[in-house]
Amino acid sequence: MSFDAVDVIRAKRDKGELSDGQIDWVIDAYTKGDVADEQMSALAMAILLNGMNRREIARWTAAMIASGERMDFGKLSRPTADKHSTGGVGDKITLPLAPLVAACGVAVPQLSGRGLGHTGGTLDKLESIPGWRAALSNDELMQQLEDVGAVICAAGDGLAPADKKLYALRDVTGTVEAIPLIASSIMSKKIAEGTGALVLDVKVGSGAFMKDLADARELAETMVALGTDAGVKTVALLTDMSVPLGLTAGNALEVRESVEVLAGGGPADVIELTVALAKEMLAAAGVTDVDPAEKLNDGTAMDAWRAMISAQGGDPSAELPVAPEQHVVPAPASGTLSKLDALAVGVAAWRLGAGRARKEDPVSAVAGVEMHAKPGDQVQEGQPLLTLHTDDPSRIERALESLTDAVAVADSYEPGPLVIDRIG
Amino acid sequence: MSFDAVDVIRAKRDKGELSDGQIDWVIDAYTKGDVADEQMSALAMAILLNGMNRREIARWTAAMIASGERMDFGKLSRPTADKHSTGGVGDKITLPLAPLVAACGVAVPQLSGRGLGHTGGTLDKLESIPGWRAALSNDELMQQLEDVGAVICAAGDGLAPADKKLYALRDVTGTVEAIPLIASSIMSKKIAEGTGALVLDVKVGSGAFMKDLADARELAETMVALGTDAGVKTVALLTDMSVPLGLTAGNALEVRESVEVLAGGGPADVIELTVALAKEMLAAAGVTDVDPAEKLNDGTAMDAWRAMISAQGGDPSAELPVAPEQHVVPAPASGTLSKLDALAVGVAAWRLGAGRARKEDPVSAVAGVEMHAKPGDQVQEGQPLLTLHTDDPSRIERALESLTDAVAVADSYEPGPLVIDRIG
Repeated sequence: MSFDAVDVIRAKRDKGELSDGQIDWVIDAYTKGDVADEQMSALAMAILLNGMNRREIARWTAAMIASGERMDFGKLSRPTADKHSTGGVGDKITLPLAPLVAACGVAVPQLSGRGLGHTGGTLDKLESIPGWRAALSNDELMQQLEDVGAVICAAGDGLAPADKKLYALRDVTGTVEAIPLIASSIMSKKIAEGTGALVLDVKVGSGAFMKDLADARELAETMVALGTDAGVKTVALLTDMSVPLGLTAGNALEVRESVEVLAGGGPADVIELTVALAKEMLAAAGVTDVDPAEKLNDGTAMDAWRAMISAQGGDPSAELPVAPEQHVVPAPASGTLSKLDALAVGVAAWRLGAGRARKEDPVSAVAGVEMHAKPGDQVQEGQPLLTLHTDDPSRIERALESLTDAVAVADSYEPGPLVIDRIG
Repeated sequence: MSFDAVDVIRAKRDKGELSDGQIDWVIDAYTKGDVADEQMSALAMAILLNGMNRREIARWTAAMIASGERMDFGKLSRPTADKHSTGGVGDKITLPLAPLVAACGVAVPQLSGRGLGHTGGTLDKLESIPGWRAALSNDELMQQLEDVGAVICAAGDGLAPADKKLYALRDVTGTVEAIPLIASSIMSKKIAEGTGALVLDVKVGSGAFMKDLADARELAETMVALGTDAGVKTVALLTDMSVPLGLTAGNALEVRESVEVLAGGGPADVIELTVALAKEMLAAAGVTDVDPAEKLNDGTAMDAWRAMISAQGGDPSAELPVAPEQHVVPAPASGTLSKLDALAVGVAAWRLGAGRARKEDPVSAVAGVEMHAKPGDQVQEGQPLLTLHTDDPSRIERALESLTDAVAVADSYEPGPLVIDRIG
């Protein structure tokens, strides 16, 4: 059946519901180029401002899935579980989490993207490991899942091509921040990927995409409903992103910290969130008799990490690169560190070279921010609080500008929970 | 100063006001191609849904004027007044009006467009006159204004090119129906054209773009304010478009009816509106001692018409073409005709070939609808009520479909005013 693009745009503009037929048609026609970019961007703005109901979002997601291939992990000898984070500063959790869950007997097919803006990308982080490659064929992916149980690789072009095209359009047209479009974008790829279970880490706070708890909750509930309706066992954790995760933000810096966690050490918040997400993934995949915290301590998660990195050409024993330029930011006063703003640290890391402004930009493996204290820690005036890492000393000044109001020292600090809520 | 397109889109998306600098930049950058179509369409949708205030609309209009050339009629030996109608079914008023006002001593530079959809275009109507050509150079336009006092011609590409580009974009992106964009589109061209006075005929009713009186009033008030602020003496009439104007809708059919009016005859509603608009144009141009009704009766308006048509290559004495296929629609009952829906008649004329669906489509000179009665007239069941004219008999069936509910016969009919209100 054929529709007219202007009629579809007008229907949503005038606060109407789009029919299943209209949604199927507009996604298909846009993927083929029969609906023009300028038409889809007007529709995206109308959706952003007027919303979509649950049926429309589900159909939109299904239409994006139908635009490409679907993978099937049904022939693997073990169940699968995947995780998606909406992105945060210092969010390296995928790195220890995937091998940890694999070490517990559940396969993790983690098809990831690259970072844009102040939140880092998982593939960018792993590419700081000498030799490691992000691109795998579907056959290689399947073989590695069977052999190692964990894969972190680039999502192929075959999954939800409509989403790929639409995401690039939204990025340049001010239409990213629409919950229906965010939810359908994430879930179309995860459902098409074919994972049996999915745990969503929905970040909320200054360093997250969602600054507001109510928005984060709506996004989480929307995605859980989409996954559940599509037969994927889906749960979401709402987690705090007002403070960076761990003590590092930057590519090689975060790999180093992840390896510490896999070795049984590392910062408490990274361990806490990694274990919490691992438990959810295992439970969603039907595995309830394994304690993931033990697998961090007994070395089996580290074994899975080394196997996963090696399988993709990386040398897990190689020295990671170190920044030639470092600049120390001292504590401004003595007392309890009461603020370390995630957005400010993320922007500083980005400006130091860890992230990209446009998707074609290169990233630096070594750039980033190292933190020597976290909120709640006691600090002395003048002690090193942050170390800025970069290849290019001219970047330090603008990074420092972003840190102007990043830090506060007070008499005390009342920490909030890292895991704020669970949905699903 | 340079801005970022996404920032401008986001500002309006989030219900903010655009600054003068943002508006100047986005119009200029869009005209040059630095802001892409998909960005401008997202902005247009945000404007449609979130509005612009009076300052923003005025600046937007000024920026579109600044994108092109401005004309100046200051050297003419007489004052100028122009008219713009928002478009209606059977609205041939420009044809008798321009020579009539010229005959009263005020020059009329009427730069017109072509029709799209169910409302006809003035140029399409005049092109049914053998030999007549719509394209004039600026020098030819100026000379004809001086010699004849009336010109109806195609607007050149030099006036408000930003509007030309934006209008074409809005047409395919469901963003036409935004009062700030409609008002700025119309007024940017009229102000750039350089007319000293402007009378707006804002239609309201089923056959008009604005179906609702409140919307029509808002559009009229917005345009009057824009014109006044730009130094153009501007008034608007709100006029009824629930019933077609006159007894014809179609290109040659409407020329024939216009000539009847110039000959001192023609339908009462066409005469009434032509004279009312002429009085407004004369008053706005400072001419208050001439009665335009007299100039219809004494033949001087007809003389001006003949001179105007001849000056553009047309033969005012030539026979107008007649449709080879005619189909009579009888009155469904006896009584008082109580309804003759403008939209239905307009769509029928369009489907018979009088209008175009896309701007590159040709139009038929002969196609259209002839009406043998108007609401308030007594009719006998079976008498000819409408005659459909077309080149192509296969078009008749779909035209008849559009007329299904167009007509009603009742015991009585209470007419409303043709001129509903005056603004300015």
